[in-house]
Amino acid sequence: MLIEGKNAVREHLSAGGTLSRLYVQKGLHGAEELVEKARAAGARVVFCERRELDKLCGADKHRGIAGVADEYAYCEVRDIVKSARDKGEKLFMLILDGIEDPHNLGSIIRAAECAGVHGIVIPGRRAVGVNATVIKVSSGAAAHMKIARVTNVNDVIRMLKEEFVTVLCADMAGQDVYKTDLTGDLALVIGSEGFGVKSLTAKLCDAAVSLPQKGKINSLNASVACGVLCYEVLRQRR
Amino acid sequence: MLIEGKNAVREHLSAGGTLSRLYVQKGLHGAEELVEKARAAGARVVFCERRELDKLCGADKHRGIAGVADEYAYCEVRDIVKSARDKGEKLFMLILDGIEDPHNLGSIIRAAECAGVHGIVIPGRRAVGVNATVIKVSSGAAAHMKIARVTNVNDVIRMLKEEFVTVLCADMAGQDVYKTDLTGDLALVIGSEGFGVKSLTAKLCDAAVSLPQKGKINSLNASVACGVLCYEVLRQRR
Repeated sequence: MLIEGKNAVREHLSAGGTLSRLYVQKGLHGAEELVEKARAAGARVVFCERRELDKLCGADKHRGIAGVADEYAYCEVRDIVKSARDKGEKLFMLILDGIEDPHNLGSIIRAAECAGVHGIVIPGRRAVGVNATVIKVSSGAAAHMKIARVTNVNDVIRMLKEEFVTVLCADMAGQDVYKTDLTGDLALVIGSEGFGVKSLTAKLCDAAVSLPQKGKINSLNASVACGVLCYEVLRQRR
Repeated sequence: MLIEGKNAVREHLSAGGTLSRLYVQKGLHGAEELVEKARAAGARVVFCERRELDKLCGADKHRGIAGVADEYAYCEVRDIVKSARDKGEKLFMLILDGIEDPHNLGSIIRAAECAGVHGIVIPGRRAVGVNATVIKVSSGAAAHMKIARVTNVNDVIRMLKEEFVTVLCADMAGQDVYKTDLTGDLALVIGSEGFGVKSLTAKLCDAAVSLPQKGKINSLNASVACGVLCYEVLRQRR
């Protein structure tokens, strides 16, 4: 995973991200502090010619600095379930079925971390993975969140239901979330930005829940809707 | 307000935005539908040379199309209060004290519109106004939301308190929002992304409220935090 530019590398490091290598253009001024931080984070620092950085990043994208980070370390679904059990808490898991915008994914991870979500499941295909933009937008929350990347979201839902986890999906036509009991073991399915939850996936869920809408537009942004739902779970559980 | 490019103009129009003039490069293909839509929205369509568009927008920004929209029509604070009274509802107003990112402002307007907020107050200085990006991100909600732009936010708070409106500000150190009564006439103050609510403004408020934070990062994005708070108001009032 390539991280281009001084600011992006600095943010990645202060968000607790790992760095295996830091490329610094020879003769660059003002990079001393970042070099020190990168070394402290275990990175090998390589001083190189500008043309090597151009080759790595494309010209005008690095401004003399680029980092190479390890790929994000995904966990298994069972690690998420175990983490709730270990804390003695009822499970609260998000299943994101096709979020495509890295800003939305980062923002969801950030809100979920604040609301005490135990982990997030994302599909390996037709969805964004945890890349440098996601980590940056999550403000470091990605480093503290268990995220599992799976081949088939529906298999995960079937498995959870066998373990008596209630699986709800967010859908405009669903029942009022404020009249729904969210205090048991729970997985909440959020669909893609454009198309919502797929119909086969929705059928597998125990029920659909919705937020009341009082306006004329009636479409909440995916990350805001997810934040509101996560906090309603937190509120009911306190 | 200049809107550059075909996509931006199309989105502006489908979000219910007004357009006073549409500039189209002579000989441009595939613009017929947009020209028709712009005319239907009351725009005067001007076919011009490429160099005129370059002068208007800067080269390579317009791709043959640019629109000129009327400035956003702000309302007065008393219009917001009146709108709640006319609906026979307890007032729910947001006061945004220094939101600088147009994406955050657009996203807040969108969430507020869904949650039934009566209006939003923003300061005229050191904050973003309702521009083309804000309108686009709000997904059309800006056209349905009463927004007042004021010289002094603190004067508005003083005026509201004289009218027995409870003024609360969002602050990490505040009391638990879930233990706070939000059912009366209410104005909620949200601070800037970087610095929160200013200390003088916070002193004027009746109290500060916060969302519980269960994670390690404990910083919610401004628009997600605002969405969660707006929905808690809606929940308590139902």
